[in-house]
Amino acid sequence: MSNYLILVAGGQGLRMGGDVPKQFMLLGGRPIVMRTIDCFVEALPDVHIVIVLHPDYVEMWKRLCKEHDFRVDCQIALGGTERYHSVKNGLAAISSESADDVVAVHDAVRPLVSVEVIRHAFAEARQSGAVVPALPSVESVRLVDGSGRSVAVNRNNVMLVQTPQVFSLSLLRQAYAQLYRESFTDDASVVEALGHAIQIIPGNRENIKITTPSDLRMAELLTSDN
Amino acid sequence: MSNYLILVAGGQGLRMGGDVPKQFMLLGGRPIVMRTIDCFVEALPDVHIVIVLHPDYVEMWKRLCKEHDFRVDCQIALGGTERYHSVKNGLAAISSESADDVVAVHDAVRPLVSVEVIRHAFAEARQSGAVVPALPSVESVRLVDGSGRSVAVNRNNVMLVQTPQVFSLSLLRQAYAQLYRESFTDDASVVEALGHAIQIIPGNRENIKITTPSDLRMAELLTSDN
Repeated sequence: MSNYLILVAGGQGLRMGGDVPKQFMLLGGRPIVMRTIDCFVEALPDVHIVIVLHPDYVEMWKRLCKEHDFRVDCQIALGGTERYHSVKNGLAAISSESADDVVAVHDAVRPLVSVEVIRHAFAEARQSGAVVPALPSVESVRLVDGSGRSVAVNRNNVMLVQTPQVFSLSLLRQAYAQLYRESFTDDASVVEALGHAIQIIPGNRENIKITTPSDLRMAELLTSDN
Repeated sequence: MSNYLILVAGGQGLRMGGDVPKQFMLLGGRPIVMRTIDCFVEALPDVHIVIVLHPDYVEMWKRLCKEHDFRVDCQIALGGTERYHSVKNGLAAISSESADDVVAVHDAVRPLVSVEVIRHAFAEARQSGAVVPALPSVESVRLVDGSGRSVAVNRNNVMLVQTPQVFSLSLLRQAYAQLYRESFTDDASVVEALGHAIQIIPGNRENIKITTPSDLRMAELLTSDN
């Protein structure tokens, strides 16, 4: 009955400026990804962690661990061309075949996930097999079709999905045995393609994905409050 | 060919704490709603403004205008029970019957709308009759049905809608002549119920709706940058 975490940090994205990818940028003086790992270790001290890195950044990660005296044991897997391939490589790095195990997939650039959400997601995944945290949209929502026409949908029915997405390990393996499709935008969509229902639990509002400089400033602000 | 703005500031919401509703809270030392009005005056100096206020806050608004030496001419209309009724009251306060006129409906608590988005929305509304600014979701999206089941949708097809929503004045009048329905969550949905198509233009990422204390801090941060 082990807990696993596949931390997706495979991006090379330098869109945010600077010479390090966003998952290694500093938040409160430490690389974002280390803060993210700390959340999981606090929530589940026994969690086994696989960090998926782009091959070009493995050395940078090792150097950062030394510089920041970061001692959490993380197995390294290499990222692939799409997120799908990165998660698949992360899964391949987990040797367990136990039917009781549970695995979370989490974006490295979501360092503000709450301990409560992590624990809740793992606990529910043991029951339902597939859990994602999500929150309803604050904005009105329109769905656009191929021709550019749009139609209003009730925003209470629109859930914006965060991570960690947590699954029975055997179910996620089975899901990732499917051939890649473009519609696989997150892990839940891969599992859903098997016909398995996805359970939604409430996420935490602060659990933003840091993809722009203003997201990073927002994260600084949210963390400096505590 | 006049330009109108109905600024929806009818909320009594004290959820953010303090003893003033959120539209009057200070951003950079001035009430949020004044910053919002400034954006429209900068974009369209000839715009006619109707501000929709809760009856309990009309005196507060007048006092704030004196305190902050705010001299933009704004006609006052009174808010109703739902957003729908507030906009309807705002429309009733506009006497023009010209077929050439264009009217924007905007949330008072969106003070970070860009001048470009405002001008673009008004220009397009003169052509298409109905325009909303929107951005695709950054998060994966799931649609939930009545039974709690959810299904993944392509997030590129999911547009999160902002304001200003800009319309031909005569079209918006015709739309608001319809009886209220619960599905009327924004002005576009009211116009759409007439069978009129809604044009989407790109919004600006910073154009957040300030509904929580952390939104307000984010807005402070975004405005102090400039």
